Amino acid sequence: MPDADPPLRLSLAHLHTFSREVFQACGVSESDADTAASMLVAADRRGIDSHSVARLADYVRMLQSEGVNPTPTIEVVRQSKSTATLDGDNGLGLVVGPAAMELTIEKADAAGSGWVAVRNSNHFGIAGYYSIQAVQKQMVGLALTNTTPQVSPLRSRERMLGTNPIAAAFPAATHPPVVIDMATSALSLGAVQEAARSHRMLPNRCALSAEGGPTRHPSEMRNGASLQPLGGDRPRGGHKGYCLSALVDLLCGVLSGANWGPHVPPFLASGEGRQSRPGRGTGHLFGTFRVGAFRPLDTFQSQVDAWVESMRSSEPRPGTNGPLIPGDPERDAAAHRSEAGVALRPEVLGDLRRLEATLDVSLPDPAS
Amino acid sequence: MPDADPPLRLSLAHLHTFSREVFQACGVSESDADTAASMLVAADRRGIDSHSVARLADYVRMLQSEGVNPTPTIEVVRQSKSTATLDGDNGLGLVVGPAAMELTIEKADAAGSGWVAVRNSNHFGIAGYYSIQAVQKQMVGLALTNTTPQVSPLRSRERMLGTNPIAAAFPAATHPPVVIDMATSALSLGAVQEAARSHRMLPNRCALSAEGGPTRHPSEMRNGASLQPLGGDRPRGGHKGYCLSALVDLLCGVLSGANWGPHVPPFLASGEGRQSRPGRGTGHLFGTFRVGAFRPLDTFQSQVDAWVESMRSSEPRPGTNGPLIPGDPERDAAAHRSEAGVALRPEVLGDLRRLEATLDVSLPDPAS
Repeated sequence: MPDADPPLRLSLAHLHTFSREVFQACGVSESDADTAASMLVAADRRGIDSHSVARLADYVRMLQSEGVNPTPTIEVVRQSKSTATLDGDNGLGLVVGPAAMELTIEKADAAGSGWVAVRNSNHFGIAGYYSIQAVQKQMVGLALTNTTPQVSPLRSRERMLGTNPIAAAFPAATHPPVVIDMATSALSLGAVQEAARSHRMLPNRCALSAEGGPTRHPSEMRNGASLQPLGGDRPRGGHKGYCLSALVDLLCGVLSGANWGPHVPPFLASGEGRQSRPGRGTGHLFGTFRVGAFRPLDTFQSQVDAWVESMRSSEPRPGTNGPLIPGDPERDAAAHRSEAGVALRPEVLGDLRRLEATLDVSLPDPAS
Repeated sequence: MPDADPPLRLSLAHLHTFSREVFQACGVSESDADTAASMLVAADRRGIDSHSVARLADYVRMLQSEGVNPTPTIEVVRQSKSTATLDGDNGLGLVVGPAAMELTIEKADAAGSGWVAVRNSNHFGIAGYYSIQAVQKQMVGLALTNTTPQVSPLRSRERMLGTNPIAAAFPAATHPPVVIDMATSALSLGAVQEAARSHRMLPNRCALSAEGGPTRHPSEMRNGASLQPLGGDRPRGGHKGYCLSALVDLLCGVLSGANWGPHVPPFLASGEGRQSRPGRGTGHLFGTFRVGAFRPLDTFQSQVDAWVESMRSSEPRPGTNGPLIPGDPERDAAAHRSEAGVALRPEVLGDLRRLEATLDVSLPDPAS
């Protein structure tokens, strides 16, 4: 292991192999390790570095010292024709999530729609990837999760809700699918981390200090500061962001029997957050609509095409390159990274080198 | 009819009776007129004046000169165990919507969840009221609709999407239900109208002029200005509001076979908007989850209680009265107006007096 890590660029395939082997070295079965690695590398491919292989060392800690179950028995607790509640047996969200989404697809096939609420899970990676699972079957997919509390409700200064993302994807005919994947807070945690890394201030009206005054310092998040809901303050619609975050929390936490609000476990249990747990683990909600249950699939897909073309051809705002379609930035990243691979940041490479050493797994040779 | 209308305060019951009689005078059946009146008066009760009896004259115009069908035959176009597509036969949204929501409840009863997409409908009133329909059966209700284009996508300066609201409601045990009802734009049209009426400027970053520069003048909306999505500009999450608006539009317009985006018909057809119509009428999506399909109802309800208590007791932001629960402002209005009735603004009263005269229906005597 070199003293100073030289820059390293790895292909997505190499990142996948390495991640799979790391998960296996932690006791995860080959098939589950493959699934979990696919989830992480999907984030790498789509340019969402905050949820990518950069987090592999955190997942290893979850498995090795936080009690996350490497061999969960995922169980259906309750079900109906179009719904189910799953218990994730404290497994990796990266393994529990894909199984739950698969079940929504089966339900939707039979009953027109499928909805699976999940309790006793953990951080599940990028929400958008689950909605794409449905699109691969030409269905409409939705995925929501609650997350560690970081966001203060309207007129509160306390971290009570997560950045609780919402994802949805719609299959088109000739265009790529429309893929929505968004936090319900003004800023994602990834955006805060990026600002901290590059020594930039946060935009105003996006965070409150622990005392409840405005702050723009990303470092304040370590001192009890909270993120504001999407919309920021009341005049600009911050109450709506709060409502969205509440919606996700109630659907993912309360409907499933997982924890909710301030009780959602942190990504790593050594983090902060309330210790009392009214439910089990982190909660998700997945949904799938079979398009043909509503209208002919080909008509739907050609209308999604028309929708995409319509939005893309709307009048550009001066000073911009014109309107985007949800999913464009991630597709641009994917086009680039599928070819060029991912240049690992020094601190990420350091993490991976440590995993190599402790788990006896080798980072692939980029030249191979 | 007096020359100058004196101020008038009417009870909710009086507003309901008058509205029902007005709808009947336009050829709507007694039962449908009762339903439509209930929808409008629900907005009056909940303090949402932009969707209340203040709009009765507009609905009359829709029925009398815009071709909206007073006696629609609402038809199931397609269905599966948990889903259906309804054609509203160009009826009042106030009549089509409640029927569609009722069908989601029936489906959820049998299949765990129920999802009804609606095409060929019209403006459906307040979205929140539909979600409350489900809560009255101790279920979780959702309601979405697309609306006349007023919102510009990220990096566009053209009105391409509606204020596309999302509503959801969750039954509690001892507390009132959590009721979410929000536009996905930074400002609702109601907020813009209120600013215009009281000669206030809009908050910054909430609207673009027709040329795509920032504007704070509510009157600019008459000159091609557009509202910004929730979040406002890109650094504060405006791309997320755009995604939400797109989500609602794709689910309500494209999945159902209604119009979408810039093609959604205006509230009154004499308004602006593109004339080309790739689908039929305005589109909605309604959804209901039967709680017992996921976990025991009483456990769920007591956890919603705990959620409400937890949010309400979080640390207040200095200078505020502390956190709100979604639905609080509307409940406060309802508590007041159920007692005190509604003081009609002069222009609203003028509209109602004109309806009295032209339709031979009498505004009730407030003393009666």
